[in-house]
Amino acid sequence: MNHTIETILEHRSIRKFTHQTIDDALLTTILNCAIAASTSSFIQCVSIIRVCQQDRRETLAQLAGGQAYVASAAEFFVFCADFNRHKQIHPEAQLGFTEQTLIGAIDAALMAQNALLAAESLGLGGVYIGGIRNNPQAVSDLLEMPSHVIPLFGLCLGYPDQHPEKKPRLPQSLVIHQEAYQPELDKQILNDYDNQTRHYYRNRSNGNKDMSWSEQITTALNKEARPFMKDFIHNKGFSTR
Amino acid sequence: MNHTIETILEHRSIRKFTHQTIDDALLTTILNCAIAASTSSFIQCVSIIRVCQQDRRETLAQLAGGQAYVASAAEFFVFCADFNRHKQIHPEAQLGFTEQTLIGAIDAALMAQNALLAAESLGLGGVYIGGIRNNPQAVSDLLEMPSHVIPLFGLCLGYPDQHPEKKPRLPQSLVIHQEAYQPELDKQILNDYDNQTRHYYRNRSNGNKDMSWSEQITTALNKEARPFMKDFIHNKGFSTR
Repeated sequence: MNHTIETILEHRSIRKFTHQTIDDALLTTILNCAIAASTSSFIQCVSIIRVCQQDRRETLAQLAGGQAYVASAAEFFVFCADFNRHKQIHPEAQLGFTEQTLIGAIDAALMAQNALLAAESLGLGGVYIGGIRNNPQAVSDLLEMPSHVIPLFGLCLGYPDQHPEKKPRLPQSLVIHQEAYQPELDKQILNDYDNQTRHYYRNRSNGNKDMSWSEQITTALNKEARPFMKDFIHNKGFSTR
Repeated sequence: MNHTIETILEHRSIRKFTHQTIDDALLTTILNCAIAASTSSFIQCVSIIRVCQQDRRETLAQLAGGQAYVASAAEFFVFCADFNRHKQIHPEAQLGFTEQTLIGAIDAALMAQNALLAAESLGLGGVYIGGIRNNPQAVSDLLEMPSHVIPLFGLCLGYPDQHPEKKPRLPQSLVIHQEAYQPELDKQILNDYDNQTRHYYRNRSNGNKDMSWSEQITTALNKEARPFMKDFIHNKGFSTR
């Protein structure tokens, strides 16, 4: 066990922040950490938009489904897959491949996780905002993204004003497969995990939310998942081939 | 500066390892770190396949384009987007959305970066293997992935037997945008970075590789980028809608 591992294992998403701002020097360090992440084939296809203006932040909070902390956090960043930079350098670049969408999403997340962990190691907290994908075109318009740039997720950072319980994750035995994909879920282990999740929700909600993980994903996967995303990314020049 | 930030900023990809194995307790900790990462809407759609058998490892090294360290590293993991687990729990789950491919790629990378940083904090080193996407169907077959599971990237871990120079990244001024996407690259800053990259390659190769970043991405983007990826993920039930 060391400071890095403690930081990683102590993660919880923070959605309530004090009014304290983040010092410029710390912010520079956090962003240098983001940039230090691995990049697929050295392609460096990620941009980060730092949004400070309050009206923009409030619009983003609404676009993300009414998540007020997008407006109130000390900092808010939007992580983007960005091949526009490459097109400026090389106008004949072959773009639009599904592979490039995967690279963009993977590399953006590697960078973001570096940023979040660096922040957490400094006593800050944060939360990813996938909700910006509720309205990707509006987010893209607001932040003036040209073709070959798409918003992937946001990241709120600030000083925590809450200390939520850690949310239990699927155990290693259900996530780690040995040598090959294990085709059948172990029902007993899943059942234990479902009970653990139900207990967590009951505690967190003072008994108002009573739901296992299996119930939660069943509800979530009964609905379409942002069915507009395919057309949106195609129109932006991603995954067209 | 603290241990976590030092670990992040000291990152370099390690492709040469000693024969030392990774202790089981450390491995458990590293994988717990992976699992502790944030998960979009608590959907938990990532699986990790740990490959130990030497013949499988050698096949994977070949499939990844002849990367011998895939076979020789102490550990090799394949990170997958996995909605098969959800389908087992809820056979009527609505799957195939492009959104779900993004979530899979993002969440897998968040987990992987936790694992790599935990490993690096313990004195280990590693490298991501995007090369498994050279032959995704063969990797999928070898590791017996059913529908709704796709391999995204590999991760080698082991004790470093090299200490390469840090590879320079695009500077913050080209990656971080203020308030909105900056439509024009600053040519002077790009030029300085190109010189820095050329210098890095010359040093690393004893003068044999003389290439700027702009030249490198121009060469890379003159070629198709794994054009089979679109059909592969569709056939696996991803991004069909």
